[in-house]
Amino acid sequence: MSLSHGKRTRLWRLLYGSGPRNGSLLVLPLDQGLEHGPTDFFPHPPALDPSYQFRLAEAGGFSAIALGIGLAEKYMADHCGRVPLILKLNGKTNIPSDADATSPLFASVEDAVRLGADAVGYTMYVGSPRQHDEFRQFEKVRQDCERYGMPLVLWSYPRGAAIDAKGGKGSLYAQDYAARVALELGADIVKLHEPDAERASAPKPYNTLDEDAATRSSRVVRSAGRTMVLFSGGEKDDDDDAVLRKVEFYMEQGATGVMFGRNMWLRPFDQAVALTRAVHDIMARYPR
Amino acid sequence: MSLSHGKRTRLWRLLYGSGPRNGSLLVLPLDQGLEHGPTDFFPHPPALDPSYQFRLAEAGGFSAIALGIGLAEKYMADHCGRVPLILKLNGKTNIPSDADATSPLFASVEDAVRLGADAVGYTMYVGSPRQHDEFRQFEKVRQDCERYGMPLVLWSYPRGAAIDAKGGKGSLYAQDYAARVALELGADIVKLHEPDAERASAPKPYNTLDEDAATRSSRVVRSAGRTMVLFSGGEKDDDDDAVLRKVEFYMEQGATGVMFGRNMWLRPFDQAVALTRAVHDIMARYPR
Amino acid sequence: MSLSHGKRTRLWRLLYGSGPRNGSLLVLPLDQGLEHGPTDFFPHPPALDPSYQFRLAEAGGFSAIALGIGLAEKYMADHCGRVPLILKLNGKTNIPSDADATSPLFASVEDAVRLGADAVGYTMYVGSPRQHDEFRQFEKVRQDCERYGMPLVLWSYPRGAAIDAKGGKGSLYAQDYAARVALELGADIVKLHEPDAERASAPKPYNTLDEDAATRSSRVVRSAGRTMVLFSGGEKDDDDDAVLRKVEFYMEQGATGVMFGRNMWLRPFDQAVALTRAVHDIMARYPR
Amino acid sequence: MSLSHGKRTRLWRLLYGSGPRNGSLLVLPLDQGLEHGPTDFFPHPPALDPSYQFRLAEAGGFSAIALGIGLAEKYMADHCGRVPLILKLNGKTNIPSDADATSPLFASVEDAVRLGADAVGYTMYVGSPRQHDEFRQFEKVRQDCERYGMPLVLWSYPRGAAIDAKGGKGSLYAQDYAARVALELGADIVKLHEPDAERASAPKPYNTLDEDAATRSSRVVRSAGRTMVLFSGGEKDDDDDAVLRKVEFYMEQGATGVMFGRNMWLRPFDQAVALTRAVHDIMARYPR
Amino acid sequence: MSLSHGKRTRLWRLLYGSGPRNGSLLVLPLDQGLEHGPTDFFPHPPALDPSYQFRLAEAGGFSAIALGIGLAEKYMADHCGRVPLILKLNGKTNIPSDADATSPLFASVEDAVRLGADAVGYTMYVGSPRQHDEFRQFEKVRQDCERYGMPLVLWSYPRGAAIDAKGGKGSLYAQDYAARVALELGADIVKLHEPDAERASAPKPYNTLDEDAATRSSRVVRSAGRTMVLFSGGEKDDDDDAVLRKVEFYMEQGATGVMFGRNMWLRPFDQAVALTRAVHDIMARYPR
Repeated sequence: MSLSHGKRTRLWRLLYGSGPRNGSLLVLPLDQGLEHGPTDFFPHPPALDPSYQFRLAEAGGFSAIALGIGLAEKYMADHCGRVPLILKLNGKTNIPSDADATSPLFASVEDAVRLGADAVGYTMYVGSPRQHDEFRQFEKVRQDCERYGMPLVLWSYPRGAAIDAKGGKGSLYAQDYAARVALELGADIVKLHEPDAERASAPKPYNTLDEDAATRSSRVVRSAGRTMVLFSGGEKDDDDDAVLRKVEFYMEQGATGVMFGRNMWLRPFDQAVALTRAVHDIMARYPR
Repeated sequence: MSLSHGKRTRLWRLLYGSGPRNGSLLVLPLDQGLEHGPTDFFPHPPALDPSYQFRLAEAGGFSAIALGIGLAEKYMADHCGRVPLILKLNGKTNIPSDADATSPLFASVEDAVRLGADAVGYTMYVGSPRQHDEFRQFEKVRQDCERYGMPLVLWSYPRGAAIDAKGGKGSLYAQDYAARVALELGADIVKLHEPDAERASAPKPYNTLDEDAATRSSRVVRSAGRTMVLFSGGEKDDDDDAVLRKVEFYMEQGATGVMFGRNMWLRPFDQAVALTRAVHDIMARYPR
Repeated sequence: MSLSHGKRTRLWRLLYGSGPRNGSLLVLPLDQGLEHGPTDFFPHPPALDPSYQFRLAEAGGFSAIALGIGLAEKYMADHCGRVPLILKLNGKTNIPSDADATSPLFASVEDAVRLGADAVGYTMYVGSPRQHDEFRQFEKVRQDCERYGMPLVLWSYPRGAAIDAKGGKGSLYAQDYAARVALELGADIVKLHEPDAERASAPKPYNTLDEDAATRSSRVVRSAGRTMVLFSGGEKDDDDDAVLRKVEFYMEQGATGVMFGRNMWLRPFDQAVALTRAVHDIMARYPR
Repeated sequence: MSLSHGKRTRLWRLLYGSGPRNGSLLVLPLDQGLEHGPTDFFPHPPALDPSYQFRLAEAGGFSAIALGIGLAEKYMADHCGRVPLILKLNGKTNIPSDADATSPLFASVEDAVRLGADAVGYTMYVGSPRQHDEFRQFEKVRQDCERYGMPLVLWSYPRGAAIDAKGGKGSLYAQDYAARVALELGADIVKLHEPDAERASAPKPYNTLDEDAATRSSRVVRSAGRTMVLFSGGEKDDDDDAVLRKVEFYMEQGATGVMFGRNMWLRPFDQAVALTRAVHDIMARYPR
Repeated sequence: MSLSHGKRTRLWRLLYGSGPRNGSLLVLPLDQGLEHGPTDFFPHPPALDPSYQFRLAEAGGFSAIALGIGLAEKYMADHCGRVPLILKLNGKTNIPSDADATSPLFASVEDAVRLGADAVGYTMYVGSPRQHDEFRQFEKVRQDCERYGMPLVLWSYPRGAAIDAKGGKGSLYAQDYAARVALELGADIVKLHEPDAERASAPKPYNTLDEDAATRSSRVVRSAGRTMVLFSGGEKDDDDDAVLRKVEFYMEQGATGVMFGRNMWLRPFDQAVALTRAVHDIMARYPR
């Protein structure tokens, strides 16, 4: 790979200068308040205050916290220098339908530079009827990342009416395509979801592909090529052991790391910190 | 928070250099002529002349007057220096349907700087099918605010067909989401409406949440986090005591202040000034 | 008002340096060939040649002639310096439906400066489903006017499906709203139509407002505030006295002047000049 | 007229420095391959090679050849300096429906300057539902023409569902409106089609206007005012005499010249050259 | 032709400095992962790793490899200087319907310059309802190519509902039109598909044109004029001899070369290299 000096420096900070410090990544996302509304905070009211996640990111030794410009500007000063920032540049509410989902920019790579971020995050709705708007918007972000030496983390999310008709956003077809799109468009890191077993209405050859969970996950990691894969933690799982098994599973399939939000910050602070430590122990076994 | 020097200076002028001068805010808005048409002035014809509101803002000791470029340029010279300006940058008429509401810019942050404004106002129709246009337009405004050190007041208004289908723009779900959007997108101050008790068609968990008025209002204040909340006065209430109770109620729930337009300028001048003084007395008990 | 030096200079030329020279305005518009097609010239074929209107503007002592870039560039050289120019910046044909009318720019404020114009004209379709495009386009024009010291004349025209459903473009509701929009958006001068008595399907309180013609017209003048009002002459009226009574009527209701096109240039040259002189006599009685 | 020095120089070259050299214009267009596809070349296969038209323009003494950037860049070097170029800036295929026709730019006035063109050509679909896009796009082209002193030839083509409903693109109503649009928008030269006798569904007064062919054609020439009119040759007519009568007819009605493509380049080379000479003889009798 | 110095230099490298080195072109495309998803790699899993194609391009002596920014940035460093790059600038997924296909940019000519590419690739969906967006986007790319001296390879692909209704994307009508569009818009090289025999629903005269395969292919080569034609290899053919006959056939009809992707990289490495050598032998007989 021929990354710019700036990208190398910032990626090094994320991979070796914070978090597990062995080339793996443990990211705490906090964009749910915009993407889903305050709904997500109801199970654990203290999490409504963004300070909670900042404190958790610091105490838990996360590689980075990923959030938008408003939260970064209003809360990060209390923690700056101690937890790297992935600035999410675009987003939307989930109030209108996702049939032709698009995620508009509300911050820029320049904002990320100004705030001292070590990467930017960008959500792409792969396969949406508006993907042409998304691609064009992405081009500018990617070029600004090149200009400023800023790593680019792609939330590569299959979405829209056509994906729904071909098996849904969670299918292997959808996630495998999303992985390749991230690679071809030039993401440094891609956030994916673990592909499910749904295949009935997927295009061939996926509709006849009977693979187990491990094979499916390792397949999307391979499709992402030299773009590093983070798997999403998804909705909260109350069973700590299940969460840890999931982390182990993802790492075994070749993931560079995990992006666990609700599964972390919906737990009481001390439990969340303890769980994070256990995650560290697992990731320590997967140096890269 | 890590606000720029310009933002701090201007916010100080709004919070401590005018109005109640104790960190609370009492704002007089005059954008109804554009948003609703001259209709709103019929109950009190003298209010049709924008000089009326300027004189009231000055005599009543408002923290600021909030209005658009045309009114600022044609009337403010008579009052300049004596009442701070929040320049509203976007707006629309209510002639077409609100199903896919969007509020186009018709002035810029540069206009606000040129006019000596202490903040800009921006209306966001949260959840509208056109929210992607709104977000992108907002990005430019927010960045210009950063560049010029201009505080940003967000009229965060749930609107559009999807909001109507999920319980309406006044519901706790809608207002709570609007509060969080303001925080995540980077508003310094947000104008909200007191959430009503409507919940039947709201998404869960709101549809089963049976909270009283105080709990609902303090919830949206918390969801707005470090973004200061102004509650709207809404339509005129002829009962002065009711207006004052409303102010007290909002301040008790954690609001930074109120934005009362029709409830002020639809009263005879002397009554409006007297009512404002009573509001000052209340707000004096809520220093921040 | 705090107008720039350039705006004051150019407005002085229009109000006191040409036409009635007493602060009133008599404007000859020639944009009908674009807006309605050559149809409008059939009743008086010599008017098809734009030289006719230029000669009439000069001989009749009009305050200004208002037309587009093509006519200005190809005909004004013969008359330059002798009749002020209001350069119309946008326009459209009436071939497609007006249901979602929008008026695209085809010239710029810079063009107006280059041509020595004393004002620009801009058509806004108030209440059209495309009003967001119109507002955004207008913002740039207004800012350029500010930059170059160019007065802005707004053709504030209610239009579109929603206006049709609420009583039509000629109703008091529609014209009153259009007047206020001009004020709030920052027009220096607004062209309006005399409001008609239609009120059945208008929003309240207009639907129950039973006002006579004089009250209606003076109301919209008041709603326009410090934005000067020109009333449109509309379609040709063969009765000279009726035309003059109309002028007197508009001036009595507070108008700054009139914009009479077809009522002037569809008459034989000498009759048109004579009628203009009579209009001057009336306007002389309404100094401002 | 107050044309810039550059426009005067280039127009002089077209009107007096090439072609008939008496102020009339004989233009050879070659945009049919893009607008209609290779279909148009089937009757005379040698014409598929653009060298054919370049050779014909040179041998026949045309005032100019009108074509797009691809043909200009790849073929004109063999003929440069010997035949003036009108660079067509926009165009489209006829594959999708014309109901909301629009003609996107694919070259710029700067390209024309770089290639040494003496004018640019621009197609406007008058009355199309997308006319607002067309007007805005045109504004930039016209301003660039002003900046670089480049004459602007407008292909003023009525098109779209509304024109079809009002009598079609060939009617006097449609062509007369198209002529006026060219004048008002600022074209130096306009290409029109000879108006046909269709009037049944045209707007009044056209629907009751019973004019002969000569009157119709001279009317649209008058409606174009000081914008020079070129009539289109349209589809190929095998009868040489008919072609010559058509040229004579157009010149008699006041046209500045003709734009004959297929009627020229679908003939064998020597016949086409001979026919061109006969056209020259006619045009020589109409100096301007 | 009057190509810029930069274009001549880079074209020389493609035509004479690599590949067959006799003026013909043998290009290995790898954009299928984006355009079709990982589906295309299933028949030969090693091809999922982009290194496979880079190694093949080098070992097989291809004139160039054609792919997008993500693959170029992450894999080309291992091969740089040894295989020329055609950087694909736009693309899309095939998840949404192709009825109104458009291919958004996700990289720029500047990116190509930075990466040392010898050409850029651009996909145009000829005849799509969105062709106006495509043309406008193309204009910028073509002008940047001019500015930087970068050859432009056009993937000229008929697509959209109107093409489907007129005989489909593979018909002679569609391919012939696509060839001409490439020429008129200014492509240096065009990638086409061999036209099929479908003609029933094509516009005249194509609907009655009964030509054999050789005549059809040589026709589209002629329609492309001085724009060089590469024929696509299309889906994989297991029969090596058939592939070679196809290459010979295309060269005989006047093609400048071929763009064979799946037919190459879906074979085992050694077979693919051997096949490439055989292709070289054929192309050696068609110097240009």
